[in-house]
This record gives sequence, C-alpha cells and structure tokens, in this order.
Amino acid sequence: MIAEIIAVGNEVVDGSVINTNASFLGEALSQQGITVRYHAAVPDEEAAMREAFATAGRRANLVLVTGGLGPTVDDFTLEIAADYFGKPLVMHEPSLARLRRFFEILQRPITANQEKQAMLPEGATVLENPVGTAPGAYYQHEGVHFAFFPGVPKEMKAMYRERFLPILEKFSGGGEIRLMKVLRCFGLPEGQMDDRLRADLQGRLGLLGTEVGFRVRFPTIDVRLVAKARDATEAMRALREAEQVLRQRLQDCIYGEGEDELSTVAVDLMKKNSFRLATAESCTGGLLANQLTDIPGVSEIFLEGVVTYSDASKIDLLGVKPETLRAHGAVSAEVALEMARGIAARSGAEVGIALTGIAGPGGGTPEKPVGTVHIAIVHPGGEWQHPYFFPLGRDRFKSLAAATALDRLRKILSPAAG
Amino acid sequence: MIAEIIAVGNEVVDGSVINTNASFLGEALSQQGITVRYHAAVPDEEAAMREAFATAGRRANLVLVTGGLGPTVDDFTLEIAADYFGKPLVMHEPSLARLRRFFEILQRPITANQEKQAMLPEGATVLENPVGTAPGAYYQHEGVHFAFFPGVPKEMKAMYRERFLPILEKFSGGGEIRLMKVLRCFGLPEGQMDDRLRADLQGRLGLLGTEVGFRVRFPTIDVRLVAKARDATEAMRALREAEQVLRQRLQDCIYGEGEDELSTVAVDLMKKNSFRLATAESCTGGLLANQLTDIPGVSEIFLEGVVTYSDASKIDLLGVKPETLRAHGAVSAEVALEMARGIAARSGAEVGIALTGIAGPGGGTPEKPVGTVHIAIVHPGGEWQHPYFFPLGRDRFKSLAAATALDRLRKILSPAAG
Repeated sequence: MIAEIIAVGNEVVDGSVINTNASFLGEALSQQGITVRYHAAVPDEEAAMREAFATAGRRANLVLVTGGLGPTVDDFTLEIAADYFGKPLVMHEPSLARLRRFFEILQRPITANQEKQAMLPEGATVLENPVGTAPGAYYQHEGVHFAFFPGVPKEMKAMYRERFLPILEKFSGGGEIRLMKVLRCFGLPEGQMDDRLRADLQGRLGLLGTEVGFRVRFPTIDVRLVAKARDATEAMRALREAEQVLRQRLQDCIYGEGEDELSTVAVDLMKKNSFRLATAESCTGGLLANQLTDIPGVSEIFLEGVVTYSDASKIDLLGVKPETLRAHGAVSAEVALEMARGIAARSGAEVGIALTGIAGPGGGTPEKPVGTVHIAIVHPGGEWQHPYFFPLGRDRFKSLAAATALDRLRKILSPAAG
Repeated sequence: MIAEIIAVGNEVVDGSVINTNASFLGEALSQQGITVRYHAAVPDEEAAMREAFATAGRRANLVLVTGGLGPTVDDFTLEIAADYFGKPLVMHEPSLARLRRFFEILQRPITANQEKQAMLPEGATVLENPVGTAPGAYYQHEGVHFAFFPGVPKEMKAMYRERFLPILEKFSGGGEIRLMKVLRCFGLPEGQMDDRLRADLQGRLGLLGTEVGFRVRFPTIDVRLVAKARDATEAMRALREAEQVLRQRLQDCIYGEGEDELSTVAVDLMKKNSFRLATAESCTGGLLANQLTDIPGVSEIFLEGVVTYSDASKIDLLGVKPETLRAHGAVSAEVALEMARGIAARSGAEVGIALTGIAGPGGGTPEKPVGTVHIAIVHPGGEWQHPYFFPLGRDRFKSLAAATALDRLRKILSPAAG
C-alpha cells in the first residue's frame, strides 16, 4: 500500500505554519507498515487542490488530506473532493445535530458557515471530531482510499487515532509487518559511519529483509533498522540478527536506543553507581549543566555546576592555581584537571567534569586556535583528561564538546564500553 | 513568479523529520513577493525524484529542492537532476579544493564519497556552503529556475541567504515592493496579543496597505508587519507608520527587532552600561548561562555563573544563610535575593541574577506547587525580586523563567522601557 499525504492551506505553502501534520501522519502510517511515498502541500485554490487529488489518486492507493474543513470561506476541501469523486455534497444530519448541540452549550448562535461543516460527499463515511467541530470524511474512489482531516494538529491527531485507525486497520490488514529499531550513536562522523556500514552491511542486511539507514542529529547519529516480513516472528528475528551485526560494527559508538540521549544514559549510569556529579564549565558556558537539568529527577545525582568564564572565577570558585594558569594558560590539560578536581572537592561529588576551551569566533592563537578544548573527568576510579579540536563554529563547538564529555563519562561508568 | 519547494529524503516522507525547510523557504520566498504554490516531499528514489522535478518544472517557474547533497549512498539528488536536465555531472574543481582543505584542517582523510559532493550538473552555478561541506547548485532549465540546497536546515538557510538570494533578486525583480519588519515581543500571551491588536489595528493598518500577523516562538512572540507598494518609498512610509501604531499598542512588550533575542538585547545593554554580570541558577539549571554564552564576545561582560541545585551548594557557593533556607525554604523571595547578592559579591560583578523554583514534575507542595519560581536581580540602582507561577512542564518552565529574568534585566537597564 502506497500513501500520499496532502496539506491544504495558504498558511502551509507560504511558510507561516510548519506542516507537522505531514510528519505525524508519515510516522503513523509507517508504523502500520504502509509506505508513505509523497507529501504535497497546496494553497486554498480549486485548481491546485483538484490537481493534487488527481495526482495522488494516480500514484497512491491511500490519500490522507489535512486542512480546509473549517467554517471559514477558504475552507472548501470537501467541496472540491466531492466534485472530484463525481458526487454531490450532502448534509450529514447526525453531524449537524452534534454541531448544533455544541453551539447550544456555548450559548452562541450557529451560523450558516458553521453548519456547512457538516456537509460531506454523498456516500462518505463520517470521521467524528473528538475534540473540535469540523467532522472528517473517508471515501473510497476507484480503489483509492481517501480520508480528510482538519488542519488543527490536535483535532487531526485525535481523529486519526480514534476514528480513522480502526477503518485503516480493516482495509490495510494482511500486509507485511514492519518493525523498527533506532540505535543512537556518537563519535563517528557521517562519512565514516557510511564507510563502516556500507562495505559488508548493506548487502548482508538486505539478505535478511532489513533496511539500514542513518540520520545525523548533530552531534549524534541515529542508525535506523527496519525489518519487514510476512509475520511478526520473522520480522523480530530479522531485526535481532541485523542488530547484532550492527552492534559488532559500531561497537561502543552505540550509546543508546530509541529516545536515549547521551545525558540520560550518563545520568542513569551515575544513579546505578550511586555517584553524585558536579560540573565546571568554561567554554561550554552552562550547556552541560543545562542538558543534565533537563532530565526530571536529576537532582538525585547532580549537586552543582559552575560556569567559570574568567580566570578569577577559576581561581576563586575552583581553586585553580594562579601559577598553573600562568604557566599553561586557561585552555590546557593542567587547568582542566585542576577544575575537575576543584569542583569535585568543593561539592563533595564523586565525579567532577571540567571543560576549558576556545569557542570562538575570537580568542584563538596560533598555538591554541579556536576550536581547541580540554576535557577532564575525576572519578572514584582515577583521573582522565584529553585534548580535542572542534573548529566548527560556536554553537556546534559547544554542543560537540558537551556531548564528548558525556560520552566519556558514560564509557568510564560502563567498563564494558570502555 | 510561481514557486514550488521539494524536499528529498526518506526521513521526511516517513515522518521521522519535520520538514521545517519548506516553511522557512515558503516564508523567505513570500517575503520576496514570490507566490509559493506547492510543496512536495519524495523519498530517496530515482523515479519519485524525477517525477517531482518534471511536475514542478511544468507548474512552477522557480523550484527549490532540499536534501540529498551529502556524502552518503542515498544522496543523489544532483545526479537525478543532471539527468533530468540532460547534462552530465562534472567535478567542480574549486568545490573539490575547498572540500579537501576542510578535511586537511580536520586532519582526516577524505573519501571518494566525500569528494562526490563536489560534482554538479554541467553548466550549473555553484552555491557555496557557508557552514558545511556539501555545495548547492543553481541551474536554469527551459526557462525554469532550479536551486538545490542541503537538507540540514542550518546549511540550507545560510546558503539561501548568502548565496542564492543575490541570484534570486536578479531574476525575480520588477514586481511589487514588499517590505517586512519583525518586532520581537515578550510578556503578553497570544490571546491578549490578538485582543490588543485586533480591535483597531487590523482595520487601520489595512488602510495603509500593511498586513500584520504574529507567530509564537515560545517564549517570545514575533509580530510581523508587511507593507506592499508599487515603489520602495511608499512601502517604507507605510511600514514606518504602521510600526509607530504597533509600538504604541505594544509598548515595552517589544524588546527587539529582526533576529534580536532577549539575551542579545540584555548583553548589549550591559555592555553599554559597562556593567559585568554573574548568574546564580537553581531551577533553570544553567539555561540562562548557556543562552548568554551562546553570544560571541559575551566574556567581556559575563564573569561567572553557578548552578546551585542542592541546599549545600547555595550555602557554600553563594553564602545563602542556613537560617534563611530553614525559615523560608529554598524556593522563596528571601533565598532568591541572597543568591543574587551572593553571586554579585563573590564575582565582583555589578549585576547579579538569581532564579530558584520548582521545575517539576516532582518536588511540588500545596504551598509551593510545581511551576513556582522566584527571580531576583541586584544591580547598581537597587534590588528587585518577584514571584512567578509557570506550570507548563519542565522544558517550558525553564525557558520561560530564563526569558523572564532576561526581560527584567533589559527593563532595569533601559529606563525608557521600565
């Protein structure tokens, strides 16, 4: 089954609204094992809509349309659709009654415009709107399934889940099962990831009926495995086998699955070890603390963080020695280590992380160019420090430096990954 | 001029990625007075891409394509495009040289995959990538302008603005003049904004040939003014008059224009006043420091920040009195003030900002429910503190609390806005 998703609305094509409906429906259909092959967006114009319906009817056998079901003058999606189906638009009495009740409750008069929302193409199945006024419609035309949803994301989602999904499951049943797994990775650039996977993997995984793809979510990369099979057992076996191959290839670059973040994985490991954490940041300017404190319940293990932008603050807050600063400069392995030791000692945390570097655009020198960063971690098992070079612009520098610190912390805390 | 925007990528059609590129380009083209009539998204498949190019070439005279320019095997947009144009794909030597330099700087070997990115359809104009490796391309085919951009939003945007816009302005000139101004606002919820503007503004601005609209970019709101006229003088006059009306209506809710952020406006004011800043955060967990340190050159005025998650750290790092914590609790006006005083005194900064609150989901009590936050600012002109209640979920709570602190700082530093 091939699906196409069409958004109707000037506000979508002119960019005033981001078309999140398309991604929601794309994902929802993919989960049903349906291949979404096209998205389209057209303005509130008869000719454009008509062409979009005809094109979709030709190249897909499931067409989901969002938008243009409301009470305003530029809402006429179902009018054009009815015309395209060669059917008149007729009043759907139960929907009209529902609409009238709704306005009675609000104690507002109902207008003709509002009542127009209850008109559907003759023969269509109504899709009730669980959270709003405009009903949707489902209609089969020349073997192609069409469904129409409101453009308001909340209404569209509720209608899809509660009203359309049961219908969809009936006519799309019996197809192939499609299982997906996302492995989240860090530490290999996109090009190297591709090289490492391509050589022997695409062929091998292909044999198992499994597809592999990846998506950069800087600074991490998602590797997505999709297994398709006739039944769930077969799909699960294919997925498991493919995952094993991938895990061998990517080893400790894989830091988690699904929605895992480097920060959530590191915090979980801290909790498992009953360690508490404190951070000392210079160049990342609080990004690391901010990522950690996005996690509910992190106060269990996160005690404090400091952002020591000035030399004076490194001395005052962290006890970095003035002579270390003089001899090696603020961006050095020595200062990073003293920062990590300082924050651990001051806070009483078992683990101290420190970063010092040059985010740029200013502040670089020939010896220490913009992009230089030293990361240090002190922990019950010892001390670790390493220099890095990320000449990527201020935002990406901060983000990659913080991720590198979290990834190292994860490896220190999970000896298997070390 | 009619435009179509095409996104290429499995991750778009299957919904794993929201197609924000389409809305950015839709808006950008609309600003140029170009009518965007279609969006399309297709998978990384030759037939689908070819059909999309042909359809767009038939119904639009400007086609912008995003995605599929990278180094991986599923990146072959330009290959299909070249074939559609009836041209071979040829190596663009300056781009290749640029790519090689990039890898030299990173001290990493360049692979054949990477080099492939420098190949363009013969006769195409290169669009350099100001922030990444893959160049884009512009090509005119049978009177239709085609431009190809990377799928990574940051790269696409930079390339559009810096490389494509000058080309576009050359061939799209001659229509009506369309000027836009964005006023960035904070402090009024969407509904109130609507009420305040609607009553007398929409009519009045309409008379001036000016449209007003707004878009929520939580926690701020952009008010957009668009003036259309036959010539630039008239459009500028309309825009200026409309802006005056809006400024009267919205007063000190307007904190900036265009790309201004609350943080950049506050930092500029700090620099103007020659004040230095230090932050003490509890519930925002480093978000405020992180936003400040995203600004290049902030080290001139930002000395240090602390994230005092535990009571012990509030005492140790900020000198908050244990008896204040006992008497009023960590989330209180008294503790917020002591935190602000503490960080200012410790750092020697003229301005100290402190936030203490309950981000949730845990930690609330009947007296101090989740969402409670106290903000305090000490500055050369005095001390300020205020309680707020933002029961919006952890992320939005942090973001709104940090924005509120920055907005207050801005008002303190610019007496006119006070």
